Amino acid sequence: MTDSPLPIVRLRPKAEARAIRHGFPWVYADELVTDRRTSKLAPGVFAVLEDAERRPLGLVTVNVQSKIIARVMDRDPGAVIGRAWLAARIARAAALRDRLYDAPFYRLIHAEADGLPGVVIDRFGDAAVIQPNAAWAETLIDEIAAALAEVTGVTRIIKNGTGRSRGLEGLAEETTILSGVIEAPIPVPMNGATYMADLLGGQKTGLFYDQRPNHAFAQRLAKGARVLDVFAHVGGFSLAALAGGAERALAVDSSAAALALAERGAEAAGAGARFATRQGDAFAVMEALAAEGETFDLVVCDPPAFAPSKPALEAGLRAYERVARLAAPLVAPGGYLGLCSCSHAADLTQFRNASARGIGRGGRRGQLLHTGYAGPDHPMLPQLAESGYLKALFFRLDG
Amino acid sequence: MTDSPLPIVRLRPKAEARAIRHGFPWVYADELVTDRRTSKLAPGVFAVLEDAERRPLGLVTVNVQSKIIARVMDRDPGAVIGRAWLAARIARAAALRDRLYDAPFYRLIHAEADGLPGVVIDRFGDAAVIQPNAAWAETLIDEIAAALAEVTGVTRIIKNGTGRSRGLEGLAEETTILSGVIEAPIPVPMNGATYMADLLGGQKTGLFYDQRPNHAFAQRLAKGARVLDVFAHVGGFSLAALAGGAERALAVDSSAAALALAERGAEAAGAGARFATRQGDAFAVMEALAAEGETFDLVVCDPPAFAPSKPALEAGLRAYERVARLAAPLVAPGGYLGLCSCSHAADLTQFRNASARGIGRGGRRGQLLHTGYAGPDHPMLPQLAESGYLKALFFRLDG
Repeated sequence: MTDSPLPIVRLRPKAEARAIRHGFPWVYADELVTDRRTSKLAPGVFAVLEDAERRPLGLVTVNVQSKIIARVMDRDPGAVIGRAWLAARIARAAALRDRLYDAPFYRLIHAEADGLPGVVIDRFGDAAVIQPNAAWAETLIDEIAAALAEVTGVTRIIKNGTGRSRGLEGLAEETTILSGVIEAPIPVPMNGATYMADLLGGQKTGLFYDQRPNHAFAQRLAKGARVLDVFAHVGGFSLAALAGGAERALAVDSSAAALALAERGAEAAGAGARFATRQGDAFAVMEALAAEGETFDLVVCDPPAFAPSKPALEAGLRAYERVARLAAPLVAPGGYLGLCSCSHAADLTQFRNASARGIGRGGRRGQLLHTGYAGPDHPMLPQLAESGYLKALFFRLDG
Repeated sequence: MTDSPLPIVRLRPKAEARAIRHGFPWVYADELVTDRRTSKLAPGVFAVLEDAERRPLGLVTVNVQSKIIARVMDRDPGAVIGRAWLAARIARAAALRDRLYDAPFYRLIHAEADGLPGVVIDRFGDAAVIQPNAAWAETLIDEIAAALAEVTGVTRIIKNGTGRSRGLEGLAEETTILSGVIEAPIPVPMNGATYMADLLGGQKTGLFYDQRPNHAFAQRLAKGARVLDVFAHVGGFSLAALAGGAERALAVDSSAAALALAERGAEAAGAGARFATRQGDAFAVMEALAAEGETFDLVVCDPPAFAPSKPALEAGLRAYERVARLAAPLVAPGGYLGLCSCSHAADLTQFRNASARGIGRGGRRGQLLHTGYAGPDHPMLPQLAESGYLKALFFRLDG
């Protein structure tokens, strides 16, 4: 028994306490004793987790509405989750980012791996976007925002309550400004380019920091190149390529709003004259470009998650193969092709095989030059590393 | 039947011609019809490969002494493997490296993926080292050297005939200077550091270019840090860290000759006063440092291949775990740990699990920040990518 004012939840006898002791951060619903008392716990409440022999394993947050019924907050069952605790976790995460980046534009908190289960915080200079994708964080959102402001000095804070993971936690969709005023898109410096991030109207938190190292790799291939950026969003790969000396870049996306931001980014970098956009369905645009006989020295495709979950895996892999098959003929002889996947369900081998198959069906062969993942501001727990979602493959195609 | 003056070799009826058609570069011994005529082919001889229905699949080199009995040289069965053909392959590889690197210091030819099966060529400015690890290249070494000089303008060429893969091909060990004069170690610029490469007496080709991007990642963590570089060779990680502003670095290796080169590199970069070495068994030195109560802000361990082949896998993984277990306690609170494996047989998941286990047994926990592979001057065929040998994992350990 644990001497604590908090409720106690307990692992079932057959559940794996060893994994928790070794740092695994989650308890699944079928591993926990869910008696009437536990079932009544309010979503997000803190509790002491014990093993079947009543030995304490740590402090957890419980959400009986989620398949992940408990998430480890602290190995110390006596920890007090308040502003000081939150500030310490945020400060620790900030120290890593300060070491890695010259300017305060990065993912500051990457959920479990940064010690704040289910919470994502992206920083944009003096602004930040919090995604509280777990019930405890929804409850403590004001404390999180206060700790964030205290540690980082940001003055403008948005709560972004969109996205699939909130639904799994039983949380509603809602985006609000918690402090400060956000009016215009924020210019974000990355790899020598400038991106325009729309923190209120954009996808996810307005900009995808995770592709930064892969943008940088594409940039090394871009000098003097004609570049095609498919599923371009706000111009991730094309603006990096222009900053790296690309002759010209064409960005393709279905969102006119995203392409407008990409154009503003190109202009901010003085590269507006080398930049063009084409709004439309990416598959259709690739087919049209092929029909026009267009080729490019560097083509990069960064589609949305085609295989976000296991049931979507087969269809998702076919979609990745199709992307590769349509993109490969657009690559000039000896040119480069970058293919990305942000699907949890498709692992590296599956995605690489689908890509290689598509390249072959597109009539080409390739060397694999580089395999990249999300940048180091997206750390992972080693126990969850198998699920690293972002993969980027860079090929050089035949001459 | 193929109309060619070359001998013909043929796949067995059940062998997989489809893989070859899709770019798989090898035929294993049990896939080929080995009649008396084939058995008498001199090692390395060129032949036309046909499928069981006598349709040509391409031009191959045959070595009945090798488990890889045939390697695809060219999809065109009528290709002529001579100086012009070699020069075209080398020029294509050089164009990629010229795009990627500011200075001519890189792996120029990475075997199958660069279209020269079994051949490795590393370039060091106006010098180059050829490893002809397949019988055909041993036979054509003078043609390869001439094509290399023609394309790149290098004036000093070494043939390095050491290493495990030559034994598998039935080739003798032998290192000779094919042209020019090599006297002193060559200074190699990489990541802002200077490495001294001993092209005649050193390991492999004198320097490991493959770790360049992982050195660069370590460098980003190194500012102001006390750094420990275990299995340092000529100072790969420690000299990169010093160039990145490390406060001081200690390099540990069993080879006094390698450490002497590391010292010369540190002096060449004006960082001699911040650099120290400790010669000895890496495991013993790590234990001694722990006994002395030493800690470092960044520890990197880049051991030799503990699991070079499948039979060595279990023992190899135990050795990687031991490296992690001994290194983890040497990392200061909140510091960084880089763990590398250059073992073909240990895949990423196995190596990561062994590393995480070792960190845990060393009494620590960590976030995984970065997974790195060999640099893009070490391309892979997608069909062989599963065997990507080099893995580097960077962790941040608990506070």
